[in-house]
Amino acid sequence: MMSDKKKNPAMQNGPGCPMPVTRHETVQLAHGSGGKMMNDLIREMFIDTFDNPLLRSQEDQAIIENGGRRWAFSTDSFVVDPLFFPGGDIGELAVNGTVNDVSMSGARPLFLSAGFIIEEGFALQELERVTRSMSDAARRAGVAIVTGDTKVVNKGKGDKLFINTSGLGAIERPFIPQARHIRPGDKILINGTIADHGITILSQREGLRFEGAMQSDTAALNDLIDTVLNAVGDAVHAMRDPTRGGVAATLNEFSAAAGVMIRIEEDKLPVRPAVAGACAFLGLDPLYVANEGKVIMVVAADKAEAALEAMRGHSLGRESVILGEVGNEPHTGVMLRTRIGAWRVVDMLVGEQLPRIC
Amino acid sequence: MMSDKKKNPAMQNGPGCPMPVTRHETVQLAHGSGGKMMNDLIREMFIDTFDNPLLRSQEDQAIIENGGRRWAFSTDSFVVDPLFFPGGDIGELAVNGTVNDVSMSGARPLFLSAGFIIEEGFALQELERVTRSMSDAARRAGVAIVTGDTKVVNKGKGDKLFINTSGLGAIERPFIPQARHIRPGDKILINGTIADHGITILSQREGLRFEGAMQSDTAALNDLIDTVLNAVGDAVHAMRDPTRGGVAATLNEFSAAAGVMIRIEEDKLPVRPAVAGACAFLGLDPLYVANEGKVIMVVAADKAEAALEAMRGHSLGRESVILGEVGNEPHTGVMLRTRIGAWRVVDMLVGEQLPRIC
Repeated sequence: MMSDKKKNPAMQNGPGCPMPVTRHETVQLAHGSGGKMMNDLIREMFIDTFDNPLLRSQEDQAIIENGGRRWAFSTDSFVVDPLFFPGGDIGELAVNGTVNDVSMSGARPLFLSAGFIIEEGFALQELERVTRSMSDAARRAGVAIVTGDTKVVNKGKGDKLFINTSGLGAIERPFIPQARHIRPGDKILINGTIADHGITILSQREGLRFEGAMQSDTAALNDLIDTVLNAVGDAVHAMRDPTRGGVAATLNEFSAAAGVMIRIEEDKLPVRPAVAGACAFLGLDPLYVANEGKVIMVVAADKAEAALEAMRGHSLGRESVILGEVGNEPHTGVMLRTRIGAWRVVDMLVGEQLPRIC
Repeated sequence: MMSDKKKNPAMQNGPGCPMPVTRHETVQLAHGSGGKMMNDLIREMFIDTFDNPLLRSQEDQAIIENGGRRWAFSTDSFVVDPLFFPGGDIGELAVNGTVNDVSMSGARPLFLSAGFIIEEGFALQELERVTRSMSDAARRAGVAIVTGDTKVVNKGKGDKLFINTSGLGAIERPFIPQARHIRPGDKILINGTIADHGITILSQREGLRFEGAMQSDTAALNDLIDTVLNAVGDAVHAMRDPTRGGVAATLNEFSAAAGVMIRIEEDKLPVRPAVAGACAFLGLDPLYVANEGKVIMVVAADKAEAALEAMRGHSLGRESVILGEVGNEPHTGVMLRTRIGAWRVVDMLVGEQLPRIC
């Protein structure tokens, strides 16, 4: 994801203030966390350097065209630690993650590439488990892995296995949901509970055990999205999957890109009890924790209930809710109404504390 | 590159003999070397598991289609060590490498993705040097980097910087050169000296100094290829860039895929004196050493001189030669006629000794 928060006042530097990236001389873990530091790095190092209009649009996928046919093109590298976790593994995540990035444009994902960087000494049995998982995930999502690459690095110069997947989806609908289409009054929908993935990974990695079942929500969302688009069409103004940085990051990105205020309500946020308990114990706000099977949809108000109904009718959307709405204030930002009725700012974190969750 | 040597008798296992992959329980450096072990790993782990016709064709790129428009789609991860070397760096290599893989189908490369896996603590100044180099290389090759991703891994869990690029090229010519089109009598052309890249990387990494200038040949070959295709069209039956595993691996792949014998002549092989000296010192055969700016073209005999002339007229092909030809023997293999007139088999190595050269 290449995102930029420059319209968000909470993320601007004062005049004469050096940019955050240049405050560091080396890359920090937080540069990969989905927060402000990552966005600054991406803007300064990549978007400005590789300058072109497609990249500058900063959606999760580029829309490319040739001979009147449009494709959505996206890439994602997966470095999750541990490789295997309740609810999935790096292989399934790598397929679903790129399927989802492509799907967020309303495209129909069709083709994936797979690039493997393997650490010398990695067990072939585990590699096979991962590739079988990728194959199963691809079949479920209706995509084909059509090209690939394998590199091996010396022991101690990698960490078991990293996977890059790039994806292509055919754009068959005339309207492409994008953050710039968000309008005051639009409703904010999500297809279920938040923070499941990030908390599951963290618990596994730290060897923590919490009461209640907990597992990653990794899933390919293309069929759910297709269902909603079939129901309400171009009333879906924007879609994005709240992965690194969680729901908070995605809403801040929407706010900045569309130049709008977004308001959500805490008591609408679906959080599993086990996840809520773990978040409380760890001092984490579930709004900032990664999801891997969730989509936030911004839908025209008059079609929001129909969209919600379509989402709830799909197996991946049984617990869908309307989280909030887009305000008509003349400034940007994300506000949360707490359970006791107070409003607080949901800012973008500078760098979240959960590296390598995807 | 996903390649398979199963038609090559020199690469088959005897009956009852376990496959090489299963002789190991863990991934070895040689599994990434471009030799037989890599091909076995790719076949057993990826091609069989992700089974689909596009992957099974085992070209360097997949040809995908939507609405009558065809694209070449390719991916490559770059883990070269060191990151900076005479003649280029990892960024330039990552752009040129994928541009070349796409170009080998005769497609016009247009769009790249870029996925960065950065080790915590990597100098931002070096990252900037790499991204500027990518940007320059993309501009020279006429491609746009349109989508990207950034991950950071903990210090000691990566090695400074790995880059994945995936590429898309528009297929605008009706004929797609592929190994299966190779015919007896075809000529084997190459656009200049061999082994420059691999020997340069190895020398840098080992701190060796040899007499004479030596530098990587990294270059985007799309313009050279376009020039040749404009000159001789579908007389170019097959093209491939001899990267990992060198000219020997590519010719063995061609031999196996087309079911033909290929004969080349040692005294036609262009090798820079400094590179030849380094190879002799290190006990390496330049035929097995990686190139990053070379293409092997298999051209119909009656158009070979015209193709050679077109190649030589391009700045990247001044030292082009006809290396050899495709025989009409009823079996596969690659044979080299030595300077003293003897013939020797040019086999595929099990695993070459130069890890992380790209």
